[in-house]
Amino acid sequence: MEDTHVSLAHGNGGRFMRELITEVFKRHLANPTLDTDADAVALALAPGFDIMFTTDSFTVQPLEFPGGNIGSLAVHGTVNDLAVSGATPSYLSLNAIIEEGLEIATLERIVISLADAARDAGVVIAAGDTKVVRRGEAAGLYLATAGVGLRQSGCLLGMKRIQAGDHVLVSGPVGDHGTAVLLAREEFGLRGDLASDSACVLPITSCLLQHAGADLHFMRDPTRGGVATVCHEIAHATGFGVRLAEPSIPIREPVRSVCEMLGYDPLFLACEGRVVAVVAEHVAASALAAMRALPLGKDAADIGSIVAAPHARVTLRTAIGGERVLEELEDDPLPRIC
Amino acid sequence: MEDTHVSLAHGNGGRFMRELITEVFKRHLANPTLDTDADAVALALAPGFDIMFTTDSFTVQPLEFPGGNIGSLAVHGTVNDLAVSGATPSYLSLNAIIEEGLEIATLERIVISLADAARDAGVVIAAGDTKVVRRGEAAGLYLATAGVGLRQSGCLLGMKRIQAGDHVLVSGPVGDHGTAVLLAREEFGLRGDLASDSACVLPITSCLLQHAGADLHFMRDPTRGGVATVCHEIAHATGFGVRLAEPSIPIREPVRSVCEMLGYDPLFLACEGRVVAVVAEHVAASALAAMRALPLGKDAADIGSIVAAPHARVTLRTAIGGERVLEELEDDPLPRIC
Repeated sequence: MEDTHVSLAHGNGGRFMRELITEVFKRHLANPTLDTDADAVALALAPGFDIMFTTDSFTVQPLEFPGGNIGSLAVHGTVNDLAVSGATPSYLSLNAIIEEGLEIATLERIVISLADAARDAGVVIAAGDTKVVRRGEAAGLYLATAGVGLRQSGCLLGMKRIQAGDHVLVSGPVGDHGTAVLLAREEFGLRGDLASDSACVLPITSCLLQHAGADLHFMRDPTRGGVATVCHEIAHATGFGVRLAEPSIPIREPVRSVCEMLGYDPLFLACEGRVVAVVAEHVAASALAAMRALPLGKDAADIGSIVAAPHARVTLRTAIGGERVLEELEDDPLPRIC
Repeated sequence: MEDTHVSLAHGNGGRFMRELITEVFKRHLANPTLDTDADAVALALAPGFDIMFTTDSFTVQPLEFPGGNIGSLAVHGTVNDLAVSGATPSYLSLNAIIEEGLEIATLERIVISLADAARDAGVVIAAGDTKVVRRGEAAGLYLATAGVGLRQSGCLLGMKRIQAGDHVLVSGPVGDHGTAVLLAREEFGLRGDLASDSACVLPITSCLLQHAGADLHFMRDPTRGGVATVCHEIAHATGFGVRLAEPSIPIREPVRSVCEMLGYDPLFLACEGRVVAVVAEHVAASALAAMRALPLGKDAADIGSIVAAPHARVTLRTAIGGERVLEELEDDPLPRIC
């Protein structure tokens, strides 16, 4: 490809667009299903399974950050939505809305990360589209991915299965992604070694499905709004209370200190490679042990429980024994982290 | 919903986002499959069919134009990609990237059009995601949709089936969408009664599949880059020439005069409710008659044929009997029309 920067002509349906798609997208994403000349492709999916479908868009700033970039994030985000639904991800679609003037080398780094993340997660990029928009729009690049996966028929995960007495587990430290992106922006003049936790959580969800079986009631990846928001969603949907034990929640020291300095609560910061799982009390300890045996789950923790009262509230039991209500997020603590 | 404009807080994962999703998206898009509380949903798809998958993003300016808006367009664009693949569209996912400050009333009009278009096309919006970006980005709203549909196993449509001697049909006048969007921008000081042709082409594709059977070789919707670009794609992929007869190509009078005034070639302007079909010569007349019996196909035409020579070129036979090469699109004739 001769051009070094994207121009509006790369979005016009003609020769330049064909070159951009062939040289940057097709080259790195090639697989037998993806046919960049076709309008739609056939998905080879197995009978006896539920076909699961999800989508997510990505507007993270900056596009590249320690531990990942918008490309790997666009795979992990959608793959993880399928994984926490109990599915094995099979296919992704990819939309790229590209700002005129984006460096092709940057775009290519991002597409390569995306291809690597897809390969690692075992998903195939089966369809795609690109648009180029005017300089000043799209902040460089927005991505949107949709995902299709298979879930064994009879899998009954869902908010409706949550019961009072259930335990709330988290698969690792919280707030790494949000904090890493915050530091990467450099607008706060802070530096740190912290990397995003962006990862495919399929090893965690498979492990939980296998170990806890029907006693695994619900899973969710705590992205935008963090672990606190997942707990609020549970409280809203079930009417139960969620009681978290503050000292049990794994938070890395650099995340804690950056949050203290800037006034953020790490419970509201996004993770992109963690799972919050709600399991029956009698399997909580064994499910936790099973997660901890995995590299991605070595810092997993039992962080609280589902309670009949207080009704539809999230409360936090502090280290010194007090208990406070964790209010729902209202203003924006950290925009554009996913 | 109390707010009249979108703020960054509507994208933060908290209460405001929940309200935006519930009041604007869920309210108009509600259906038994869509579960805005779930990470992924199960798709009820039939055995004995190929599952087809596609995606498209939409950045049209202005957001609303005569004959449609970005919402109806986001349904038609993806539904039509499935339809021209020979599939019946079943499910869509929807991503909305919203600019801070967009009027909620505008967003709601767009979502209502989207819901109406989905209902008319018989597709279910099964998954969605919203992001809010800073003022100045996203030009109000970008949408991305992914689609899943079913195609009868054994359907063999594709570029590979195109043969020399085949006829090229178009289901109606070309360039209406591109020209209508151009006029809606008002930057040219022109006014006209022209409306976009944005529509679901399923009636056309079903009719062709039924009438031409195995003699229907290929279908495509001529969106970005228009009918000329579809012909170039055929020429590139097959190595055959495409010879178009200029006087046979249906172009509405207002499209012709706007294009003459502004120096555009209507053959390169986007349609969003048309089909280009390549059929065996012996069924060309009957397939054309079948399309013309439909309201959406009443101006269908046989516009040319596939030829062994000149190799991989698109040529245009003019009214006065001359023949010229139709070059591939290079610079942008009309950005942001889809």
